[in-house]
Amino acid sequence: MAARIDGKAISQAIRDEVAQEVARMKSALGKVPGLAVILVGSRKDSLLYVTSKEKACEQAGIRSYSVNLPDTATEAEILEHVHKFNRDPDVHGILVQLPLPKHVREQEILGAVSMDKDVDGFHPTNIGRLAMQGRQPLFIPCTPRGCIELLLRTGVQISGKHAVVIGRSNIVGTPAAMLLQRHNATVTVVHSYTPDPAAVTRTADIVIAAAGVAHLVRKDWLKPGAVVIDVGINPIEDPSAKKGHRTVGDVHFKEACSVASAITPVPGGVGPMTIAMLLQNTVESAKRAYEFNGT
Amino acid sequence: MAARIDGKAISQAIRDEVAQEVARMKSALGKVPGLAVILVGSRKDSLLYVTSKEKACEQAGIRSYSVNLPDTATEAEILEHVHKFNRDPDVHGILVQLPLPKHVREQEILGAVSMDKDVDGFHPTNIGRLAMQGRQPLFIPCTPRGCIELLLRTGVQISGKHAVVIGRSNIVGTPAAMLLQRHNATVTVVHSYTPDPAAVTRTADIVIAAAGVAHLVRKDWLKPGAVVIDVGINPIEDPSAKKGHRTVGDVHFKEACSVASAITPVPGGVGPMTIAMLLQNTVESAKRAYEFNGT
Repeated sequence: MAARIDGKAISQAIRDEVAQEVARMKSALGKVPGLAVILVGSRKDSLLYVTSKEKACEQAGIRSYSVNLPDTATEAEILEHVHKFNRDPDVHGILVQLPLPKHVREQEILGAVSMDKDVDGFHPTNIGRLAMQGRQPLFIPCTPRGCIELLLRTGVQISGKHAVVIGRSNIVGTPAAMLLQRHNATVTVVHSYTPDPAAVTRTADIVIAAAGVAHLVRKDWLKPGAVVIDVGINPIEDPSAKKGHRTVGDVHFKEACSVASAITPVPGGVGPMTIAMLLQNTVESAKRAYEFNGT
Repeated sequence: MAARIDGKAISQAIRDEVAQEVARMKSALGKVPGLAVILVGSRKDSLLYVTSKEKACEQAGIRSYSVNLPDTATEAEILEHVHKFNRDPDVHGILVQLPLPKHVREQEILGAVSMDKDVDGFHPTNIGRLAMQGRQPLFIPCTPRGCIELLLRTGVQISGKHAVVIGRSNIVGTPAAMLLQRHNATVTVVHSYTPDPAAVTRTADIVIAAAGVAHLVRKDWLKPGAVVIDVGINPIEDPSAKKGHRTVGDVHFKEACSVASAITPVPGGVGPMTIAMLLQNTVESAKRAYEFNGT
């Protein structure tokens, strides 16, 4: 039976570390990190995310700033808030909650966030630095960073291993592949044009599944002993569940458990790591801004 | 026996196409593209490269500008020339010949080249855009672009194939892997930490060898029918050669010929493509600057 990689416990440990760093900064400088969140519209899931980010900030001692604009907000109005936060020295991270309403050009808005405050790490310059040898990104995108932290804190060796990343999104798959390679894994990226994804994935020591397809990865996709990180958050119908549906990953958890050596559950695996890494990115940004060094 | 991919002929075809574009631009606008090359020091190989670039520009009708600074030039002096070319509307591409003398910080100089004129395409923002879905790089780095052109113009299908890139340099391996993935190949990057590079490479339909190690890729590294692009330019001793040495690739050509379906020779494969793509990048830059459209 595969060991369960406990994202809840690991993310809590990171959040505790972050809280300690914040406390140390506060007592040394009288300053705390600040995270600004811009929400446009009233999507329920977005509201939920924003609320949980604010709560996590509060617990860690990070000051949170939030702006809630109506669905009808213009690009100019949104940009005004981005610029205001760019200028505000108490704000060290700016997050624009996605998706934005359709009439707003996402790239225009995201591109306006100051590189120094782009805690999501999605700016092309940041992605380029992540890909290049001898360069350092300012921020490592939160979800991929969370995947790697899960491996590192579980004692999984990455260097010299063959890693397969399923999915090539800008937000997860592509930066995850870059990170794995930075840790000296041999990386293969599987995507919708891969003729036999199961065969490729079966060669992997480490699998990061980020395709967004429920139960895509079955037992026969995995090499015995593989370590599996499941990024998927997919709702499926389940009449036995209270709400009539439940959330599953990209990996068929039960089947994978009989083959893998370790695996993240969904929920409680990668999910809680994203917010923990967001807090960590925000603290690191504040430390840079104040030239406040690590322990 | 593997078909030989004739880089000399293909690069000549591209240079002819570039010359036609330049002529078309000249007759329509009275303008031609301009390429500036900054050379610091007097390394023989660098001088040779710069001279051949100037010659290639001349043949294509591209105006070339070159500055030759002494080995002792300061960063400020070099930057002055970079800024001058950045401002010059007749210059559409700026190339800083590498390597720079050791006292000069390469990243500072390269980072000063205007994004719009970075025909080498090495700027992190450009690499980030190359890596990301839905983004377009301004320039595709010349040597990797040359590799892909060789495949495309030989009628090799890339989409759905498994490609292995050997080497992860910023200049060749990394952008080559990104390009192959943009063409929907499933890509694996092999590097110095890969425990069994032969076994991984043997799974590839397309191999791009860019490790900089003479004769690294032997017969048993290749799957029968693989297409092999050899980026290596390695001098090896050869008492039978006039100068006592000759140039070989990263692939053992003779051995590979008995297994591969197609292969680039060294010299005469990827080598001449780099300059052809540099010319093409320069013309594309001029077309953007003059808002002059394609045929």
